[in-house]
Amino acid sequence: MHDLISKTILPRFSNPILERLDDSAVFEMHGVKLAFTTDSYVVKPLFYPGGDIGKLAVAGTINDLAVMGARPKYLSSGLILEEGIDINVLEKVLLSMQETALSAGVMVVTGDTKVVERGNADGLFINTAGVGEIVEGYEPTEPVKGDALIINGTLGDHEATIFASREDMNIEVPVESDCAPLWSLIEQLLEKYASSIRVMRDPTRGGIAAVLNEIASSRCITIELEENKIPVKDAVMGLCEMVGFDPLYMANEGKVVLIADSNTAEGILDIMRSDPLGKDAAIIGHVSEGRKPRVILKTLLGGRRIVDLMVGAQLPRIC
Amino acid sequence: MHDLISKTILPRFSNPILERLDDSAVFEMHGVKLAFTTDSYVVKPLFYPGGDIGKLAVAGTINDLAVMGARPKYLSSGLILEEGIDINVLEKVLLSMQETALSAGVMVVTGDTKVVERGNADGLFINTAGVGEIVEGYEPTEPVKGDALIINGTLGDHEATIFASREDMNIEVPVESDCAPLWSLIEQLLEKYASSIRVMRDPTRGGIAAVLNEIASSRCITIELEENKIPVKDAVMGLCEMVGFDPLYMANEGKVVLIADSNTAEGILDIMRSDPLGKDAAIIGHVSEGRKPRVILKTLLGGRRIVDLMVGAQLPRIC
Repeated sequence: MHDLISKTILPRFSNPILERLDDSAVFEMHGVKLAFTTDSYVVKPLFYPGGDIGKLAVAGTINDLAVMGARPKYLSSGLILEEGIDINVLEKVLLSMQETALSAGVMVVTGDTKVVERGNADGLFINTAGVGEIVEGYEPTEPVKGDALIINGTLGDHEATIFASREDMNIEVPVESDCAPLWSLIEQLLEKYASSIRVMRDPTRGGIAAVLNEIASSRCITIELEENKIPVKDAVMGLCEMVGFDPLYMANEGKVVLIADSNTAEGILDIMRSDPLGKDAAIIGHVSEGRKPRVILKTLLGGRRIVDLMVGAQLPRIC
Repeated sequence: MHDLISKTILPRFSNPILERLDDSAVFEMHGVKLAFTTDSYVVKPLFYPGGDIGKLAVAGTINDLAVMGARPKYLSSGLILEEGIDINVLEKVLLSMQETALSAGVMVVTGDTKVVERGNADGLFINTAGVGEIVEGYEPTEPVKGDALIINGTLGDHEATIFASREDMNIEVPVESDCAPLWSLIEQLLEKYASSIRVMRDPTRGGIAAVLNEIASSRCITIELEENKIPVKDAVMGLCEMVGFDPLYMANEGKVVLIADSNTAEGILDIMRSDPLGKDAAIIGHVSEGRKPRVILKTLLGGRRIVDLMVGAQLPRIC
């Protein structure tokens, strides 16, 4: 997938905005700084503990805008329905999209619906695109040595939930997807700490391993993670031990990972922990010395290993 | 489909911007007037005379912006690929997206790619969303009696092409899809006639019958079409006679239908006809007396009939 995107797709559309490969494109129109993003959602199953494809499709796009420091404003909805889809399923998904949009103060202002023959689209696929407005005063800056790496909660809840929900699995994992729109939390952080936050990312597919490697490589910094500080639920850890997953590589749908001036780290933690979306927030590492673009994990036993991009297959249709 | 959208989907997202049901949502952000739109493309086959799914996905969204008087600026690309898709097919489609975007001066600035198992997505589906900037001086106004109804060329070329291209058809129809980005043509019209154009629409699925009914109903006007003035290619008319299609209901992908002050109709025609995208342009009707929201066709034989929304099935996966 990484190869497909970097070798086949990106070169075609080469332009400076796209090439930043952030969670949203950012551009100015007559002095107004906007963010614009899209995601298609093909998650399987459509409903799972803690969420469904509708909530995910709205929250996911809101989060891609929010981590760029953009207040999410307007969404589009592109539905591809399989002929014969149960109308109750569709209504439940739409209700969930509506509730999630309302709760985050965004409006679905444009849409499109296509129907394809039975045997295609597997029930339904949803694409959402979103437009947001970068908040004044937020200007991502270069991370420097000593900066803190902070996450708003436990890793891997979404992927563990999807894995356990697949019909052909026979595992009970007492966990729910973390799927949630994060703007309300990020807005509070930006109100107080806009000038000390260097970068925020949304660790979905590929987990924090993927986004931290992207940050390390684009900013040419070394990021050091401390394994004993990384919050992971017992149920998720149990699943990981059983099937050989690593929480660092697992998808999240309600998490923001950020790098900030270490002087403000405790203040950021306080804000996060006082919000239901951040009650398990933690400082999980820091920017270390050296300009080698890499991510290092200080393990529980005190060793150090490189956290690479995942090689090989990821769980398909996780989002 | 009309019922599904109006009864199940729209009520969920009820808001004043969406409810205008124009080809794009229009809103202001800090005084900048923007248009925002999306479409998913599931056309079958992926390649056909005059175009392919990639060209269609870019041109279609450009046209939805252009008919709102918006200069198309930024596009998103959401690809859903079927596992095992021939990489050459994908590359051909991406090249086509790139060429169409470049030719229209728009940039694909953000994207997403998902892969689903074999047997889903039928090769590939593409969603594009687009952001454009409404040109200054264009402010759609209410159509009035006597206004001219103008189209930039022949009806039905796209749908006839798709119909004839389906593998299970055994018909040769010497026609190509009209699929093209229309901004370059619409920009010329707006430069000279922004203040006299009342409304523009993009007659895709459902043909001009659908868009004229929408205009008639939202503006509460009667539109009268003259059958003998409606441009239709002989090959398309031949197909219609053979299989019982009506060009008024057939999808187009490179057409704009507009209502303008009749004093400027000849000037608009001149601009259209001097552009390859409008060489078969024609005045095909006018806004008639009365405030009954309906579309009437003056037939070749001099009779009059109501042009209703199509009842029953349309050709699926036309775009």
